[in-house]
Amino acid sequence: MLGRIVIENVRPRTLTGRHPAKATAGMPLRITADIFRDGHDHLGARVRWRRAGDKQWTDVAMTSEPNDVWAAEIVPAHVGPHQFAVEAWTDRLDTWRHDVQAKAAAGQQIELELEEGARIVDDAATRVPKNERAAAAAIATAIRNGDFHAADRFDAPPEPVDLTKTATYDLWVDRTRAQVGAWYELFPRSEGGFKGATDRLDDIVRMGFDVVYFPPIHPIGTTFRKGRNNTLGALPDDPGSPWAIGGEDGGHLDVEPTLGTIEDFDRLVRRAHELGVEVALDYALQCSPDHPWVTEHPEWFHHRPDGTIKYAENPPKKYQDIYPINFWPADDGDRQALWDACEEILRYWIGHGVKIFRVDNPHTKPFAFWEWVIDRIHADHPDVLFLAEAFTRPKVMAKLAEIGFTQSYTYFTWRTGRDELREYVEELAHGPLADYMRPNFWPNTPDILSGPLRNGPPSAFALRLVLAATLTPNYGIYSGYERGENQPASDTNEEYLFSEKYEIKHRDWDEDPGVLTPLITRVNAIRRRHRCFDELSNIRFHHTNNADLLAYSKHTPDFRDVVLTIVNLDAVYPQEDTIWVDLGALQIPWDHPFEAHDELSGVTYTWRGGDQYVRLDPAQQPAHVLHLRPLRSA
Amino acid sequence: MLGRIVIENVRPRTLTGRHPAKATAGMPLRITADIFRDGHDHLGARVRWRRAGDKQWTDVAMTSEPNDVWAAEIVPAHVGPHQFAVEAWTDRLDTWRHDVQAKAAAGQQIELELEEGARIVDDAATRVPKNERAAAAAIATAIRNGDFHAADRFDAPPEPVDLTKTATYDLWVDRTRAQVGAWYELFPRSEGGFKGATDRLDDIVRMGFDVVYFPPIHPIGTTFRKGRNNTLGALPDDPGSPWAIGGEDGGHLDVEPTLGTIEDFDRLVRRAHELGVEVALDYALQCSPDHPWVTEHPEWFHHRPDGTIKYAENPPKKYQDIYPINFWPADDGDRQALWDACEEILRYWIGHGVKIFRVDNPHTKPFAFWEWVIDRIHADHPDVLFLAEAFTRPKVMAKLAEIGFTQSYTYFTWRTGRDELREYVEELAHGPLADYMRPNFWPNTPDILSGPLRNGPPSAFALRLVLAATLTPNYGIYSGYERGENQPASDTNEEYLFSEKYEIKHRDWDEDPGVLTPLITRVNAIRRRHRCFDELSNIRFHHTNNADLLAYSKHTPDFRDVVLTIVNLDAVYPQEDTIWVDLGALQIPWDHPFEAHDELSGVTYTWRGGDQYVRLDPAQQPAHVLHLRPLRSA
Repeated sequence: MLGRIVIENVRPRTLTGRHPAKATAGMPLRITADIFRDGHDHLGARVRWRRAGDKQWTDVAMTSEPNDVWAAEIVPAHVGPHQFAVEAWTDRLDTWRHDVQAKAAAGQQIELELEEGARIVDDAATRVPKNERAAAAAIATAIRNGDFHAADRFDAPPEPVDLTKTATYDLWVDRTRAQVGAWYELFPRSEGGFKGATDRLDDIVRMGFDVVYFPPIHPIGTTFRKGRNNTLGALPDDPGSPWAIGGEDGGHLDVEPTLGTIEDFDRLVRRAHELGVEVALDYALQCSPDHPWVTEHPEWFHHRPDGTIKYAENPPKKYQDIYPINFWPADDGDRQALWDACEEILRYWIGHGVKIFRVDNPHTKPFAFWEWVIDRIHADHPDVLFLAEAFTRPKVMAKLAEIGFTQSYTYFTWRTGRDELREYVEELAHGPLADYMRPNFWPNTPDILSGPLRNGPPSAFALRLVLAATLTPNYGIYSGYERGENQPASDTNEEYLFSEKYEIKHRDWDEDPGVLTPLITRVNAIRRRHRCFDELSNIRFHHTNNADLLAYSKHTPDFRDVVLTIVNLDAVYPQEDTIWVDLGALQIPWDHPFEAHDELSGVTYTWRGGDQYVRLDPAQQPAHVLHLRPLRSA
Repeated sequence: MLGRIVIENVRPRTLTGRHPAKATAGMPLRITADIFRDGHDHLGARVRWRRAGDKQWTDVAMTSEPNDVWAAEIVPAHVGPHQFAVEAWTDRLDTWRHDVQAKAAAGQQIELELEEGARIVDDAATRVPKNERAAAAAIATAIRNGDFHAADRFDAPPEPVDLTKTATYDLWVDRTRAQVGAWYELFPRSEGGFKGATDRLDDIVRMGFDVVYFPPIHPIGTTFRKGRNNTLGALPDDPGSPWAIGGEDGGHLDVEPTLGTIEDFDRLVRRAHELGVEVALDYALQCSPDHPWVTEHPEWFHHRPDGTIKYAENPPKKYQDIYPINFWPADDGDRQALWDACEEILRYWIGHGVKIFRVDNPHTKPFAFWEWVIDRIHADHPDVLFLAEAFTRPKVMAKLAEIGFTQSYTYFTWRTGRDELREYVEELAHGPLADYMRPNFWPNTPDILSGPLRNGPPSAFALRLVLAATLTPNYGIYSGYERGENQPASDTNEEYLFSEKYEIKHRDWDEDPGVLTPLITRVNAIRRRHRCFDELSNIRFHHTNNADLLAYSKHTPDFRDVVLTIVNLDAVYPQEDTIWVDLGALQIPWDHPFEAHDELSGVTYTWRGGDQYVRLDPAQQPAHVLHLRPLRSA
């Protein structure tokens, strides 16, 4: 039977509620629930939470908001599994307080009410610590003597009347880097292997990146190796795609010899650690025909009626250089051995200091495998992060996030218009996904050169960089972005011409450090200076009449750090508008002047009111990133 | 562990999924689910459903829609509890069909593919009925011989590969009147009691109403009886509020003697039945101080420290003529006796032919009580309907609908602007509530005279009538509406001046049948003529530039009946606009002329294209109700 009080729609939670929602250590987490009962009695409510395994719960009082929503904030300190629950009860004392005040204000008799209130306090007094009982008794006496305001001095413990508890909800707490990070992707082979990549770390750190991510560093197969521009029939010096993993030099537990040795890799990781940047590796579960698993474990692959192993295809496209792995059915002994081997790969690289994995195409492997392997790794290493490279359908992406992935690539790459950007970011920031899917915005990847970047001017790269870096706390770019590399494979192909996936790029960074490097450096510095960029849910879009201008703000919970970003989405023409900033939402008085300091240009404006004229010329700057501060009154 | 295939977000369902969603016998019900798996293999899916207690399930194939949604339609024939579940599997044959066609079209070799396809058919053949096996074998042979299109002729049974089933979902199926009905509320005492009300039935039927609802017909208390205009100190001939139930002539199982006898009531119900209109009664669980329960069961009421029974109040307001009942805690013996007595009231009136109850203030009694009593009544009388009069917070209203109420009063009464009407109806028609809450729109009730009706002209009553009757399948008006009774109690009070709740109204219907009666009659006739008005989910709003015009269409699933309604929300001034009708959504060609026949005025227009000029003068007609029909090409 239903209880008297209803508690439902508890958040954060995942879509099905069968997996933990996500939080970040050291960052506030808002917990909400719909709580109500029949009638007009007042309620009390609290959140109880703890680290999994702890005996003690921490209680936080919830406060009531409009529409029967109750909320509390917790700040978990540790990474790993946590739990929380919500409790509510009928607050008789508060109900009485409200009623007696209304009656007294209307001049009605309240003798009986005083006795009723005193009895509620008498009852509550039996539940307070012994040393507080005398004080409680004194309050009951004061009420009986007519001083009903005495009840306001009584901090009543939760009442057992209709006490209702939810089930316990699981919560996974990640470290900060799960929530906030600037990523930089590079192919070590184009930098001269691990040693060259180690040298390049200084540049990357100088630009302000937090994570450097490498495509697979393992030996590359030669059978059906792809040549330049994804052609069949590689020439002898074509290096092949790093995703065609496995060759005579080994598989996923080995490094491609032309990159260096495992010791070189270890040195790179150590150096990165010294510089405060983290190395992320690619976790791509597929094999070239030359991978050791193909001969050692043919049972891990799909076989055709003629006994051959099935290569990857998307008919009529064929990917003969790659064998997909057969992960199913899970209850088959061969499969368990395979899953164990896949887990071993992660443990091996974790042993070499890697704590972040960018997972290639997770949507082509069973959800059950990811749930299993992430749970197992997290049991021993709760600080390991997994970025899902699932450029696929929305519900599949959401499911991968639900079952354990820390972050997800997104559709940002294809969202270029004002309204579609706004709608998409609103969905990510405020929809149900916000409880468990952390987006990572990439303007480009080695696979995707899209939108205004295709044959685009540096201003196009500038505006997409500002968008990615200021819309969401996690973003990344792929090497070459800083130089505005912009040649598409063809008018209909999203890949790069002379894609780095199939050849080594020789970029002399000393000679040409990249026209966008100063902007990238500046933007990353702004992200670090302003804590409001650590959150996604705090984003708020502001009105523009000009569809080529996108305006949005972020603020810290205390509104001490408020930044308004206005981006010109047109890479070619200047755009102007009188935008409307919702100052009320930013707790800035509409009738007092305030300072808008442009962190990109260094110019400071004095504004007053929400209607503000802006003009952005892409030849000069792609955006305003305005730190808003009320001016002290003169 | 997760299975390979995910089935989630199954609809219809209630918010928590712990109570049945609602359907209507004889009307199509759309069942949907999100269904997906990893990779690119094709899926098959079906709904299995049955009446609770039946052994056999009926299977309906689901078809795939965009964004991983799958859908099927069922049409339950009986009222009462039903069940359904969703199943999905990997459709190897369909996957193969897609791949082999793509390869053949690209001129690739498909020898191995043919063998793979033949093997899938061989395997499926073991699961078809014996007499179909030879045909299946022939298809496998044809495929082996190169005719891969042979697979198209094979109606493969669901494959056991990755077969996934959801839990069983409960579904409550109501009779038609739950879904569609025009209600008319009257106070029998103002018509001269049951006999006069019986005479009035002819008018009500002539106007086209389906349900006639009476406020409580029980004896009224005299202690603290309210006088005219809700005053304290009734005069001797003041009849009192019918909601102050119980007096020396009895309680909820008795009739107020001045209305007539129970035999008179029975005759009224029989006559209504003959005329095809149904009688609905008020189920108001509260007592006057003179109710027999007060002396027989003082334990069913709230007591104060001085031993007196607590009357109803909303401090500082007092309702001394009413004692609320104490329904809690439920596990107390007294309470069980009370709940049984409350159930007995329903069974008594069901015994007198009443199958519809309008439930007064259900939000002030525990949810658990409603769940219990509605379940018990429905177990024996699945055709009984309950309308929740819960003018309260949205989540409480939703919960009452979830736990069993058939219909709900709504906020329509206070939604008068174009955008707020649209937003509210969209929420009711397309939001999560649509699965289990059926709105009943009332422009007025004896408690509520609001918006443009307050001191409003007949045109205000006309426009609100058209809105209520054409926006949702269930609507109702309270007697006097047809005459445009419009005097509010005061500028700040929503009630009527000289409210019928506290006095008898003498309306001579022969002398003044009501200026709005012809319109009401016409609108109810239109509702009956056009089956598209039986649905809420088929509503679609169309663009108007003029905020005083609201335009919306309804259509049957086959688009054979399409009605476009355009209402002038301004009761005083003519409003005009070139509206934009989304013809594509109505399956009307934009480049061919079509007929727009105004069912209100009788005028027929020939339109072409979605941009159409309209002008509505409230002095002439409040709305266009346009039956749209493509013209046959000449």
